Amino acid sequence: TRSLLSVFEEDSGNLTEYTNQLLQTLQRVFGAQSEMGLATEQLSRQLLDYEKKNFALGKGDEEVITTLQSFAKTVGELNSLHSGLANQMADSMVFPLIQFREKDLTEISTLKEIFGIATDEHEAAMVKYSRLPKKKENEKLKADMMKEVAYTRRKQHQASLQYYCALNALQYRKRVAMLEPMLGYTQAQ
Amino acid sequence: TRSLLSVFEEDSGNLTEYTNQLLQTLQRVFGAQSEMGLATEQLSRQLLDYEKKNFALGKGDEEVITTLQSFAKTVGELNSLHSGLANQMADSMVFPLIQFREKDLTEISTLKEIFGIATDEHEAAMVKYSRLPKKKENEKLKADMMKEVAYTRRKQHQASLQYYCALNALQYRKRVAMLEPMLGYTQAQ
Repeated sequence: TRSLLSVFEEDSGNLTEYTNQLLQTLQRVFGAQSEMGLATEQLSRQLLDYEKKNFALGKGDEEVITTLQSFAKTVGELNSLHSGLANQMADSMVFPLIQFREKDLTEISTLKEIFGIATDEHEAAMVKYSRLPKKKENEKLKADMMKEVAYTRRKQHQASLQYYCALNALQYRKRVAMLEPMLGYTQAQ
Repeated sequence: TRSLLSVFEEDSGNLTEYTNQLLQTLQRVFGAQSEMGLATEQLSRQLLDYEKKNFALGKGDEEVITTLQSFAKTVGELNSLHSGLANQMADSMVFPLIQFREKDLTEISTLKEIFGIATDEHEAAMVKYSRLPKKKENEKLKADMMKEVAYTRRKQHQASLQYYCALNALQYRKRVAMLEPMLGYTQAQ
């Protein structure tokens, strides 16, 4: 199982790396969409500002003002559209992947740590047990040590089950985690 | 005419200021659109990278890979679209206003400068003429100075005509200059 474990671990390491890169890119797309909303908002405001400039020589300016105002309206609508898309992207594209990273991937690394500690404890107990002097008068101590070995083994076994289980579940969650943001992105188009 | 001139000048100053602000905003919109293209390009590449990760535990990965590839294709098409829009914005929205600023507004300020120099020269000539001693033996010098006054007045008159003419023309070009980028923007949507 040790080598199968290392395959699982490598896989989950790869997935974490890929997830981080993908998340960065998704956040870049979201950032661009969000900036698009802000830029069009500024443009819409600026077009309305033309009127406030109060050009003294307003020959034909009424036409310009009216036209710019109707442009400002169109740009304002585009702005709502862009901002709406940005919000949708945040909710249904970036957020699920962040959650996957924070919840599933972080869980894996926590469980890995717990499993490592349990393994160390179990090994330490075994070393202590093996170093006991082989004299008869140590029977009581020996029995205590055996209990400790058994206890730490149980603990390690439990931690390993949780860890393997999470690694295995990750394989299934991965698929959803990879596809969900893209579905969200497609919806936001 | 002096006070009418100052109205024209104030107007053109206002217009320059407004043009600079508008240009900044248009460039911001263009920048956002351009970033949108770059971000989607990166996303499309990243989706294809999933396959190259070569996850050892490829249970169900073929499906994920195929789906991500088809997403990558869609995102790639969006990328071309965004990049195309960005190019169109550069050509038909930002460029016309840059040209207006570089050509029309710069011409005004150049002509204003020339007009100012010509005015100074004419005034200097008049001052010199008025300070001539009123003696008869200075008739020759006086005639020369009168010629200079007449010459600088002609020059100043010419410069003023060009300057006024450009200020006046600006009033007409202004309308096109303000509306053209917005037409370009609307086309790019």
